[in-house]
Amino acid sequence: MFYIIGLGLCDEKDVTIRGLEAIKGSSRVYLEAYTSILMVQKEKLEAFYEKPLILADRDMVETESDEILASAEREDVSLLVVGDPFGATTHTDIILRARALGIPTRVIHNASIMNAVGACGLQLYNFGQTVSLVFFTDTWKPDSFYDRIKENADLGMHTLVLLDIKVKEQSEENLARGRKIYEPPRYMSIRQAVSQLIEIESLRQTGTLSPDTTLAVALSRVGGGSDNQRIVAGTLTDLVNHPEDAFGDPLHSLVLVGKRLHHLEVEYTQDFAVDLERWRNTAKQVYGCALD
Amino acid sequence: MFYIIGLGLCDEKDVTIRGLEAIKGSSRVYLEAYTSILMVQKEKLEAFYEKPLILADRDMVETESDEILASAEREDVSLLVVGDPFGATTHTDIILRARALGIPTRVIHNASIMNAVGACGLQLYNFGQTVSLVFFTDTWKPDSFYDRIKENADLGMHTLVLLDIKVKEQSEENLARGRKIYEPPRYMSIRQAVSQLIEIESLRQTGTLSPDTTLAVALSRVGGGSDNQRIVAGTLTDLVNHPEDAFGDPLHSLVLVGKRLHHLEVEYTQDFAVDLERWRNTAKQVYGCALD
Repeated sequence: MFYIIGLGLCDEKDVTIRGLEAIKGSSRVYLEAYTSILMVQKEKLEAFYEKPLILADRDMVETESDEILASAEREDVSLLVVGDPFGATTHTDIILRARALGIPTRVIHNASIMNAVGACGLQLYNFGQTVSLVFFTDTWKPDSFYDRIKENADLGMHTLVLLDIKVKEQSEENLARGRKIYEPPRYMSIRQAVSQLIEIESLRQTGTLSPDTTLAVALSRVGGGSDNQRIVAGTLTDLVNHPEDAFGDPLHSLVLVGKRLHHLEVEYTQDFAVDLERWRNTAKQVYGCALD
Repeated sequence: MFYIIGLGLCDEKDVTIRGLEAIKGSSRVYLEAYTSILMVQKEKLEAFYEKPLILADRDMVETESDEILASAEREDVSLLVVGDPFGATTHTDIILRARALGIPTRVIHNASIMNAVGACGLQLYNFGQTVSLVFFTDTWKPDSFYDRIKENADLGMHTLVLLDIKVKEQSEENLARGRKIYEPPRYMSIRQAVSQLIEIESLRQTGTLSPDTTLAVALSRVGGGSDNQRIVAGTLTDLVNHPEDAFGDPLHSLVLVGKRLHHLEVEYTQDFAVDLERWRNTAKQVYGCALD
């Protein structure tokens, strides 16, 4: 049996009992280490699971998956994934490959940012499609996410924006010289994300986003109820001016608030507001929320 | 501390280690038993958790939450919720109440249908807003869900449709006579859901749904990798003609496939198709999917 097991969002204790049993019964256990990151080191996971973990990078999961799947038709093999296994396309690829090889597969679900985002107090029902924001460079500023955000915003829906991470990237020089030397991981900060959003809005000028009147919520380390969880709410300007370290440690996500905002959502979220009065006034005057 | 703990979607083994630790350390543990159902009996949960569980119905969670929260400022109290705690509005209510009382709260996340729906092979990124479908009666056929489905469909997005359940409902006679006698639980079937959708389409006639060319995926008991999981894919007509028992046991959910369908999504989902050829042909000809 080939298991793909979601580890949830925080640390070694967010695995489910079912997931832990599958891990303990597996001959080989791979840890996928590029689409997202857990907040604990591999060694801590290994100690808790009482199993050595084999790190699986993007190449291994996407193009060399036969190595992972080897022998899974006669013994149990597990691939551990941060969050839920169906957050990223790559996991459907490996399941399709397992199917083609006639290997039975089982998916063990867990929390992912796609549902844990509810922790900020905005209703999951009011979210439209999720978008990803990649690091801009001087010459490469892909902005198709903006069309998705506009589609959601036009309908009044919230948008979950997932922020880019760079793990196991090579510098141009090392890449050119074929040296397998990797840069330290980089995580997009909330301030950078908001800056990129404002940059594209100023190019497109559709009025979808407005620095001073678009409300947004920044999330850090939501998940298993960690002490590190941080949620910060404000206008885009509030967030871009907020001290970097006040957003907590990566990973970060950002929610752009849609116009169908309900007053209960405002009341829940205001606890996280940089400026309570501005949060409520904007919700009332710009979003048309029925607040006292 | 007041804990709200997601139990995941299947049975007693879908709780996380963190959740189980919180349960074991709590003086009182409530089990919410109305917004959704687990697939196991309370007694089995109690045996596994080694804790007695107090059933909490809608009244208790929504209007008598002070009883649940009593003493939580000085000892640990847990409320167990099927899926993830942020699926239903009611849990933000009780957290707001805890806040007002100065009681520290922690949420322990888990899988919910909002992310486990990815098990059908449709990408979570391509989903728009989620809708709920309630049981129609002869005189009450609320159809605002249709507008939401149309909004998603117009943008080419998939729609997750959550099907109504009736737990602890009273008959009109028992209600009138004030007798606390409850009807057996009812769960909307896939066939009933599809019939209701087609009924509203025939009233509205916007062409959002078409019995013979709208693709849909029915899900039953997705979650912790249970043996009971069933996924059935087909046109709306395929599903409404499919044998009732072939959909598996409740709870069921339904996904309406949007026009942005990607060929990899078709390839993954076709394994669940009632009629493989029709599934692929419809994806190709009606949805414009680039398939061989």
